[in-house]
Amino acid sequence: MKQIEVQKDILSANETIALENRQLFIRKGIFVLNLMSSPGAGKTTLLERTIELLKDTLNLGVIEGDIATTYDAERISSHGIPVTQINTGGACHLESNMIKTALNEFNLDSLDLLIIENVGNLVCPAEFNLGEDAKVMVLSVTEGEDKPLKYPLMFRLAKALIINKVDLLPYINCSTEKIIEDVTSLNPDLSIFETSCTKKTGLDAWKAWLEEELNKKKKSLPSDG
Amino acid sequence: MKQIEVQKDILSANETIALENRQLFIRKGIFVLNLMSSPGAGKTTLLERTIELLKDTLNLGVIEGDIATTYDAERISSHGIPVTQINTGGACHLESNMIKTALNEFNLDSLDLLIIENVGNLVCPAEFNLGEDAKVMVLSVTEGEDKPLKYPLMFRLAKALIINKVDLLPYINCSTEKIIEDVTSLNPDLSIFETSCTKKTGLDAWKAWLEEELNKKKKSLPSDG
Repeated sequence: MKQIEVQKDILSANETIALENRQLFIRKGIFVLNLMSSPGAGKTTLLERTIELLKDTLNLGVIEGDIATTYDAERISSHGIPVTQINTGGACHLESNMIKTALNEFNLDSLDLLIIENVGNLVCPAEFNLGEDAKVMVLSVTEGEDKPLKYPLMFRLAKALIINKVDLLPYINCSTEKIIEDVTSLNPDLSIFETSCTKKTGLDAWKAWLEEELNKKKKSLPSDG
Repeated sequence: MKQIEVQKDILSANETIALENRQLFIRKGIFVLNLMSSPGAGKTTLLERTIELLKDTLNLGVIEGDIATTYDAERISSHGIPVTQINTGGACHLESNMIKTALNEFNLDSLDLLIIENVGNLVCPAEFNLGEDAKVMVLSVTEGEDKPLKYPLMFRLAKALIINKVDLLPYINCSTEKIIEDVTSLNPDLSIFETSCTKKTGLDAWKAWLEEELNKKKKSLPSDG
């Protein structure tokens, strides 16, 4: 069927450039996260908290993906971190060629950690590798406990899941135990964190995970000599 | 550019079948809504409240669109309403041919109002007409006030917007005034309702709007004679 073949071509072209991005990240020794969620789950606030926790010890960079506006890049920029905004125009996800272009805006030799905030969408971004080391998901408890089984692909592919806005649990009907049970059935190796990015709770474990993953990558790289 | 041409073909094929659906709805005198939102904004709970309000006076039907699971159809079915679940497999939106197939499951002669719950996604569903009379959006206040300008297309195309979960406003940082200001700049004719579907507030105005739109459609139809 023609439509499916075209989709295959698009995904295959995306994989080729994602591999180029990945090789560049290895050469430059940069650990790269692809941060994904539904709209409004708290990706940008998580980014702001993460910057506060790590900016004194690591060189950070951020790529912001949005259909329209530069709101998120302005929020990140106020923390004194290099940030590039990609506006997709209408596209519902980032693709590897957009990242390749955005990388020209950074001094890659001075970066330790690059975080890419994808377009808010629980479906499409999961299908497009960007060359990242890990996909990280944010799920807000306000979205409901049924989301992992209803939108399984992203939960299957993620390396870490941040269950966010747990400060709202007293006011809503959502069981984090059910979320954890379901995501573990989809993805037994997933690292899971429960946070409130506005109340700044649960972030130490997330910081420790990030530092550990970053060190693992550094050790795995070929030495400069 | 090849990719864009294919996208045009897909959208054009979708429009052709959407028009067939629309003509069928006119012949059968059915008012049809396409209900869209991010994952977890409260579409299914709004549907349950709407069924409770209207099922004694109108013949209702529901089509549920999800990537996976039949959870939502089970919730609707418990209210004694005919419901058909579409599982898209992985597709991030419903298309008109899926609706055309699902319509075979209904006795169309006995329906007044058909509500189609789209896949939870604030981007892609807006691009695909299904043959509906009106697109209706749900935005949860927990998603944040910045969403209309960041995801403008769906807000531009909607005929009604339900700002939901307003019972959570005391616990979060979100201004419904800002949402209303921004959506009105995108779409001055939008009808706006503020509701809590779990606390059952704000639903009378929504019910009145639905009944008025349904009556407008009935009056516009060619008479049977």
